Amino acid sequence: MEPFSFQVEARAGRARVGRLFTPHGAVETPLFMPVGTAGSVKGLMPKDLEAIGSQVLLANTYHLLLRPGPERVRALGGLHGFAGWKGPWLTDSGGFQVMSLGHMRRIDEEGVVFQSHLDGRLIKLTPERSIAVQEALGADLIMAFDECPPYPSPREYLEASLERTLRWLERSLKAKTRPDQALFGIAQGGTDPELRRRSTLETIRFDLPGYAIGGLAVGEPKEAMFAMVELSTRLLPEDRPRYLMGVGHPEDLVAAMGLGVDLFDCVYPTRTGRFGSALVPEGRLNLKNARFLEDRRPLEEGCDCYTCQTFSRAYLAHLVRAGEMLGGILLSLHNLRHLHRLTEAARQAIREGRYGDFAREFAGRRFGREVPPWFREALAAGGHW
Amino acid sequence: MEPFSFQVEARAGRARVGRLFTPHGAVETPLFMPVGTAGSVKGLMPKDLEAIGSQVLLANTYHLLLRPGPERVRALGGLHGFAGWKGPWLTDSGGFQVMSLGHMRRIDEEGVVFQSHLDGRLIKLTPERSIAVQEALGADLIMAFDECPPYPSPREYLEASLERTLRWLERSLKAKTRPDQALFGIAQGGTDPELRRRSTLETIRFDLPGYAIGGLAVGEPKEAMFAMVELSTRLLPEDRPRYLMGVGHPEDLVAAMGLGVDLFDCVYPTRTGRFGSALVPEGRLNLKNARFLEDRRPLEEGCDCYTCQTFSRAYLAHLVRAGEMLGGILLSLHNLRHLHRLTEAARQAIREGRYGDFAREFAGRRFGREVPPWFREALAAGGHW
Repeated sequence: MEPFSFQVEARAGRARVGRLFTPHGAVETPLFMPVGTAGSVKGLMPKDLEAIGSQVLLANTYHLLLRPGPERVRALGGLHGFAGWKGPWLTDSGGFQVMSLGHMRRIDEEGVVFQSHLDGRLIKLTPERSIAVQEALGADLIMAFDECPPYPSPREYLEASLERTLRWLERSLKAKTRPDQALFGIAQGGTDPELRRRSTLETIRFDLPGYAIGGLAVGEPKEAMFAMVELSTRLLPEDRPRYLMGVGHPEDLVAAMGLGVDLFDCVYPTRTGRFGSALVPEGRLNLKNARFLEDRRPLEEGCDCYTCQTFSRAYLAHLVRAGEMLGGILLSLHNLRHLHRLTEAARQAIREGRYGDFAREFAGRRFGREVPPWFREALAAGGHW
Repeated sequence: MEPFSFQVEARAGRARVGRLFTPHGAVETPLFMPVGTAGSVKGLMPKDLEAIGSQVLLANTYHLLLRPGPERVRALGGLHGFAGWKGPWLTDSGGFQVMSLGHMRRIDEEGVVFQSHLDGRLIKLTPERSIAVQEALGADLIMAFDECPPYPSPREYLEASLERTLRWLERSLKAKTRPDQALFGIAQGGTDPELRRRSTLETIRFDLPGYAIGGLAVGEPKEAMFAMVELSTRLLPEDRPRYLMGVGHPEDLVAAMGLGVDLFDCVYPTRTGRFGSALVPEGRLNLKNARFLEDRRPLEEGCDCYTCQTFSRAYLAHLVRAGEMLGGILLSLHNLRHLHRLTEAARQAIREGRYGDFAREFAGRRFGREVPPWFREALAAGGHW
């Protein structure tokens, strides 16, 4: 039997519920994947992630390459043996962090040379090296080595970059040896429709088990981002999972799920939690605000997470003010649960053929009467509005 | 029925197993109380504390007085309603932190004036104010306002201070109004046997529901400390709980339990955990040491805590090196469980009349052949060696 497969189980407009089978279990899509940068979701124990319904964790190849090093992780049983999360893992290719965190020194046909942000040593990352590292880390889902150009980039640069990313995809595939890992290709092309189309069509020619929509949520306007998501999900094959990288704002999830995106990841829920903010249907609560100091309500009425079941906003506001680390932990837990509940509710709405109602109810709470055009247009394009 | 009572259930030499009844549940002694300074045990959720067998949490009156303020905690249901821990709480009197953390400005018969370490404002703490604050916080066990003199202090100062502490105890008792809180007196006297005796005898004349041995573990040699513990437990009434404040090193617990101490608290297990160290029967592992980076074993063989059941030393060493907050959290959890297991094993040994064997086995693992004289002498005085 194939170690990987993907089945679409229900559809509503362009939205779909799917089931993705991996060697470490089957997961339901659409789903949000918490980010465990260096092999831990900051401040949260795997058992707590399991309890809130996390299904897949993401780890960053860049961080684990620098520390503790891929051979060490391999020797300790790969991510599954090392980090206490026995369900599926996804690793990125390292390319994005090289651009955003490392001091990139040189990019050429062969790959990228960068300076470690930890100790300054020069490190080369190529498609072959990225795959070797990802094979050592042992995630179920791995990503082709790509370049994610900054926004904005000149058209000529985007074009040269996406062509190189396609050649890197070919090299990534050649370098791959493990049959128990599924390699996803990443389409680029910035916000240029023609380049995005070309990159997507060329990428799907490789007939891969899954595809990522890359290079978005890097500063472009929402209209441009969702025009690209709409285009991408029209071109990507129906029977493969689609992963919108780096996206984690609730409104973006609702719009993208409506267009048929299946997978998401982002540091947003945990980072904003550590900074003292809570995701709620109306948007975001900044717990540093003095008005919460005597607020006896839970963060979110009706939320089933441990934070909401146990603590008041007043207590959480106190923890945030006092710099108590438990504040960021409890907010991170709630924020992840908030996104998981959002995808769970979306799945149910898709199964019941009422994703449009779901999206409109979401928009009513989130935006009131001022639903932004990009949101409505994405939902309309998905057949829900 | 009395809201508080204490029953000694078993004895071995001077060691004893007891049961302390409070309005929020009965607890077994000897027991170690985790410190939740500002209303949270740093990085740990109440459910995790419950899972490792924590029974009573301690909160610091000083910290909660400054932030969020006692009236706010009272309005939110006291510590039990505010902080998610439904079992018994103990609050200290604030005196110790005024000396150690605040910028003390004046101490006189009335009380102490100090400058907040947060915003510099001047705050007065008197016995009356300390009790009022502790009544607002609502802990089950509260402490009389005392002065904890630094070590070393001149005999004249110790003497004047302990006399004032006795007058403050009288005022603390007069100020107390809530029948659902038990007020413990604190004996002082530094390491001067005559002053320690006088302070203890004068304190027990108040016929209180429990007594603390204060002013120790502040820098004095172990011999001096345990001479005072030995003297104190000889003088304190058998039918009341004895609380050795600020003590949390495993070897100190074993020696003090042997002398009949019932309650302990200390930031040591959580603080040393956040700093990257793990308590084990042999002493302490510094996870920053490179030798742990490939060590597949759990922190402590046979430990039933989530950390030991789930993660290797190698992973924990990685988290500590990478500055991942989960490292300090998992080490704190283990360290607290280590102390809880130690007191659980001590209780069982006392019930089975083999505390001496227990202490010798502990010493063999902890010290090897070099058992320090203070440890052996304390155990001998307790009738176990």
